[in-house]
Amino acid sequence: MKIKQRGLCVAVLVAFATITAGADEGMWTFDNPPIQLIQQRYGFTLTQQWLDHVRLSCVRLNDGGSGSFVSPDGLLLTNHHVARGQLQKSSTPEHDYVRDGFYAATYDQEIKSPDLEVDVLQSMEDVTARVQGAVKPGSSDDEAFKARNAAIAAIEDESLKATGLRSDVVPLYQGGEYWLYRYKKYTDVRIVFAPEQQAAFFGGDPDNFTYPRYDLDMALLRVYENGKPIHTDNYLKWSANGPSKDELVFVAGHPGSSERQDTVAQLTFDRDVVYPVILDYFNARLHTLQQYSAGGAEQARQAASEIFFIQNAIKSIGGDFDGLNNKKVFDTKVEDEAAFRKRVESNPIWAKDYGDAWTEIESATQRESQLFRTTVYRRTDSDLFDTALELVQYVAEVGKPDGERLPGFHDAQLGSLKYSLLSPAPVYPSLEIAKMTGSLEYAVRHLPANDEWLATTLNGQQPAVVAKNLVSGTKLADPAVRKGLLDGGQSAIAASTDPMIVLARKLDPIVRADRKQWDAIDGVTERAGEKLGEARFAVYGKSSYPDATFTLRLTYGVAKGYPMNGTIAPFETTYYGLYDRSASFGDAPPFDLPKRYVERRTKIDLSTPLDFVSTVDIIGGNSGSPVINRKGELVGLIFDSNIEGIVGDFVYNDYQNRAVAVDSAAMIMALRQLYDAGRLADEIEGKSSQ
Amino acid sequence: MKIKQRGLCVAVLVAFATITAGADEGMWTFDNPPIQLIQQRYGFTLTQQWLDHVRLSCVRLNDGGSGSFVSPDGLLLTNHHVARGQLQKSSTPEHDYVRDGFYAATYDQEIKSPDLEVDVLQSMEDVTARVQGAVKPGSSDDEAFKARNAAIAAIEDESLKATGLRSDVVPLYQGGEYWLYRYKKYTDVRIVFAPEQQAAFFGGDPDNFTYPRYDLDMALLRVYENGKPIHTDNYLKWSANGPSKDELVFVAGHPGSSERQDTVAQLTFDRDVVYPVILDYFNARLHTLQQYSAGGAEQARQAASEIFFIQNAIKSIGGDFDGLNNKKVFDTKVEDEAAFRKRVESNPIWAKDYGDAWTEIESATQRESQLFRTTVYRRTDSDLFDTALELVQYVAEVGKPDGERLPGFHDAQLGSLKYSLLSPAPVYPSLEIAKMTGSLEYAVRHLPANDEWLATTLNGQQPAVVAKNLVSGTKLADPAVRKGLLDGGQSAIAASTDPMIVLARKLDPIVRADRKQWDAIDGVTERAGEKLGEARFAVYGKSSYPDATFTLRLTYGVAKGYPMNGTIAPFETTYYGLYDRSASFGDAPPFDLPKRYVERRTKIDLSTPLDFVSTVDIIGGNSGSPVINRKGELVGLIFDSNIEGIVGDFVYNDYQNRAVAVDSAAMIMALRQLYDAGRLADEIEGKSSQ
Repeated sequence: MKIKQRGLCVAVLVAFATITAGADEGMWTFDNPPIQLIQQRYGFTLTQQWLDHVRLSCVRLNDGGSGSFVSPDGLLLTNHHVARGQLQKSSTPEHDYVRDGFYAATYDQEIKSPDLEVDVLQSMEDVTARVQGAVKPGSSDDEAFKARNAAIAAIEDESLKATGLRSDVVPLYQGGEYWLYRYKKYTDVRIVFAPEQQAAFFGGDPDNFTYPRYDLDMALLRVYENGKPIHTDNYLKWSANGPSKDELVFVAGHPGSSERQDTVAQLTFDRDVVYPVILDYFNARLHTLQQYSAGGAEQARQAASEIFFIQNAIKSIGGDFDGLNNKKVFDTKVEDEAAFRKRVESNPIWAKDYGDAWTEIESATQRESQLFRTTVYRRTDSDLFDTALELVQYVAEVGKPDGERLPGFHDAQLGSLKYSLLSPAPVYPSLEIAKMTGSLEYAVRHLPANDEWLATTLNGQQPAVVAKNLVSGTKLADPAVRKGLLDGGQSAIAASTDPMIVLARKLDPIVRADRKQWDAIDGVTERAGEKLGEARFAVYGKSSYPDATFTLRLTYGVAKGYPMNGTIAPFETTYYGLYDRSASFGDAPPFDLPKRYVERRTKIDLSTPLDFVSTVDIIGGNSGSPVINRKGELVGLIFDSNIEGIVGDFVYNDYQNRAVAVDSAAMIMALRQLYDAGRLADEIEGKSSQ
Repeated sequence: MKIKQRGLCVAVLVAFATITAGADEGMWTFDNPPIQLIQQRYGFTLTQQWLDHVRLSCVRLNDGGSGSFVSPDGLLLTNHHVARGQLQKSSTPEHDYVRDGFYAATYDQEIKSPDLEVDVLQSMEDVTARVQGAVKPGSSDDEAFKARNAAIAAIEDESLKATGLRSDVVPLYQGGEYWLYRYKKYTDVRIVFAPEQQAAFFGGDPDNFTYPRYDLDMALLRVYENGKPIHTDNYLKWSANGPSKDELVFVAGHPGSSERQDTVAQLTFDRDVVYPVILDYFNARLHTLQQYSAGGAEQARQAASEIFFIQNAIKSIGGDFDGLNNKKVFDTKVEDEAAFRKRVESNPIWAKDYGDAWTEIESATQRESQLFRTTVYRRTDSDLFDTALELVQYVAEVGKPDGERLPGFHDAQLGSLKYSLLSPAPVYPSLEIAKMTGSLEYAVRHLPANDEWLATTLNGQQPAVVAKNLVSGTKLADPAVRKGLLDGGQSAIAASTDPMIVLARKLDPIVRADRKQWDAIDGVTERAGEKLGEARFAVYGKSSYPDATFTLRLTYGVAKGYPMNGTIAPFETTYYGLYDRSASFGDAPPFDLPKRYVERRTKIDLSTPLDFVSTVDIIGGNSGSPVINRKGELVGLIFDSNIEGIVGDFVYNDYQNRAVAVDSAAMIMALRQLYDAGRLADEIEGKSSQ
């Protein structure tokens, strides 16, 4: 599966333009699609109409994935594992929609998701000149950092006010360019259909990030506006058949963050510090959650999604870690950088302007080492505490001029932030206590006893006691209480005796001090990164794509198997294989089949394709992206990469890296034959409902 | 698949006793089974009765595999790929038994195999004292070599005369021990049943040596004596179900040759000379055969088995080659040897007696380098020429005292040799010409133009002309002609004007000169090997098993999956998987299903287990070995190792190395439901025929 922990890897987000894309490589922005390359290789010409239609049919989900409209009535296809957070939050001890699936036979029965936001990219505008122009010549790294951020906040705010659209400025080519992306934002998103987790995630953690695969990792949502399903012409028509072997396919989606243009110093830092530290921390979290889960069925239900998420992250990050420890992979990086540096140094002007960027970044990563660890260790792993801190910071930040605020608190971002702060999603106090206890015990093991953050949090007590007191004492689980504090502003927060708010007030200065240190480092790496971005344009021209930034990208490739473990993997699997793998493991978890698959086995054509792979260049964040054929029809649904493809965060190769998708034929067949959801199948296929 | 080219790797046959067997490691001789280890690990005690029954139920096939009796009426189970040579030789342009399979509904219809020999081990006797005692103190390596060989020939001859049994002296623990193995020999072996090649070898070369797997790699033969099926109490009862997960299982069979105790110098020689040279030569042979095969359906039929054999060898040897190039594998070998040498050198007596063995072997491998290449290049790849040379040598050798003859020509071996020399198997002249042309052209590319062997063979003509003249001129394809020459003895051979015989007479002295060089090298490595064998006994005791020597061995382990390519492989597969893999590849070769599998799909229970893996320690030669449960019942049929297990020639680990077998349930189901051979299923299951 292709979810990745975002946010934690602050240290690895620096990214530069790549040299030239080989094979079917590339996560291309929609302003610069590889029309000529595709024309040359496949004899197919992307038209502006095709591109616009696809762009407007595709969405980004704030839960960290992608999706696409598949009917004129706002029906939205994404992965079960992308929708799973909302399924979990909508579940109760009586109805476990993650485990059992869900189907709304009528509009009435559709369930409003608690805090999902869906964004559709309306336009892109190059604002490089304005952002870079805000930095006065001769300014320090710190001054430049602030000036850039202020300019970005201003652009976003102006755009929001002028258009009413969500407006994000994104650096591309590591600051070689800045673009304003405007999104139509939807927050009334309802759950229509999800299969059982065992159908969506058959094979569980072992099969995650592997292929051949047999997962129906799909979910259907519906986007509403003003209480009614939206009506749109921008949706993807459905292909009754998935792709054929070697067919050209496209994927439009939102890859999260790649590090293909990181310098060797940064990759070394990732390999030696970032990944081992994160893996250790995640394994500790997993251990805590598994212990909690073992307490009973209801505990297991509560912790299921987070366990899923962390196992997925461990396998993904573990794959990255292995990739960086693979001498061949790393040597390629070293060689590429050496060649690039040589080119830069061979030109006196380039050497003067850009030549010191690598050493600047190297020294920044050295300064980062301790700070990175501290940032990981200083965590409560409590949703309630995170909410408390956001409330404390919110009331402080909104009082400042927009340009001077912390990231995430600019005017243009407040709408989405409030939406998430007021989410009615349930909070499980005993789970919160367990997580916070686990995380604080981990902090005790890794931070010095006199660490300011730790001493303030514990205040001389044991982690378990602290967690219990905080969680049982706080009222923040109630959205109304949060709303009261938000509306009450600074005075309400200052007067609050809620123990979480009290602790957040105490820790806020420490968190801000850490943030300042990060800003200082980021100031250096951004500036150096910008140099490298420009150097790349100078040396290689703008013939390529920028590293991923969770913005809409187009990638292309062919449906194609690959050499695997001594033999070849086929480009597609069938339902036969699902039954084989289940029977091979004696139907034992995680290879057990949902009951309906056993009961209805003879009703389905087992030779129906189930999943397939293609050479499209995807990474985490692409989950839920549609796979599209030349005609613009949906032939599949991306949900994972194979194990060989995890290293795609750093390098792409089309020899073994593959994207794994659900076949369109499998989804329709399942809706009709397995889930009695022919009504949805009809809607998707544009047939009048029976 | 686990066939390996035997014979060519003369340089890599030196083998020493291993240290101590870890995990379920070990190919144990029946005189020294690991009774205590199995008792400790699995609480099961092997009795002498169990061992004797299994030993007498198992057979060795001279085509290079193993098998077992499965009915009281001489019904013998082995692999399709072991029986395939005989199927090919019994086929005609009208009846392709390899491709289409074969089933004899009655005894009458059973087909006598042209030149198969089946051996059943009757007894084992330690003759170490006599063989080692034949070497006089102070004799040179060469004298010792000759004395040992003479003693061995004498023991074999005496035993044959006394018992009428095939009698082979085999060195174990690289000469640390010598044993006389006596076999009951059968040469009237008839073909009873074989499935289509596509059922037996589904997935072809890509799936060969891999798992998960879906092959029905079985064949049934029947052993006759005096024109009637033998009757025996020594056969394995059939288990209706294959093994369950984690069940203890045994394998009794004839592993060909392993190199686990080779010195680092030998492994280095293998890695740098033997494997690359052989791989290049095999690839050239494959190319020749594929070109021939492309000429038409009949040509394809003629070349099919040899292509199969060579592809198999390339994948196997390629796996070995990769293994030796794997730093981790090689480092283990280096470390083990260093530890062993240190132990030897720490004891002054050991140091004196054994300490120089490693350097002796190292210098021998250096001398071997050119000779090895020459031996590979000086080949005609013509069965007719090989026969001619054997005839020429036969008549010369039988005139000498037994102890002085070339290996293979001792009295005790003449029976088997004659049987093979007089085989009525068909010879295809155009295939012979193609192979010989290809091989001589290869020799031209690799040998100096003035090479004696090459110059003599070509006599100034082009390879294609030489091959055509020789093959069309010879009468040796006729067994009666061969018989005439054998009976006529030296004078008949000397008088023969058959061009193959004429050439063989000319090349014989050159071949003998090469043989002499080999003997000189073997004299050194055998003596040094003996020292190392003794050193091992001295340092570690006789707590282990000798390297494989194509003699009967017992190995044990559990039916168990393993970590594979990011996920886990199940311990068994089912018929569902066969249909999945075929459908996944659009039923395209080599993943196409035989017609009956398509037509009878609904007649079979697709959840029936098809193949399974276990941790038993097998290598090439074990093909066709029975997998046996505690009760002594047959639960499976070994036919391959997984790709991770190829390196088992050098090292064993139970983390990923697995043996692949056909499940007993799959075979019975197939006989009954797919092949209408219920009569055989009844015979096997001990039910009275309907």
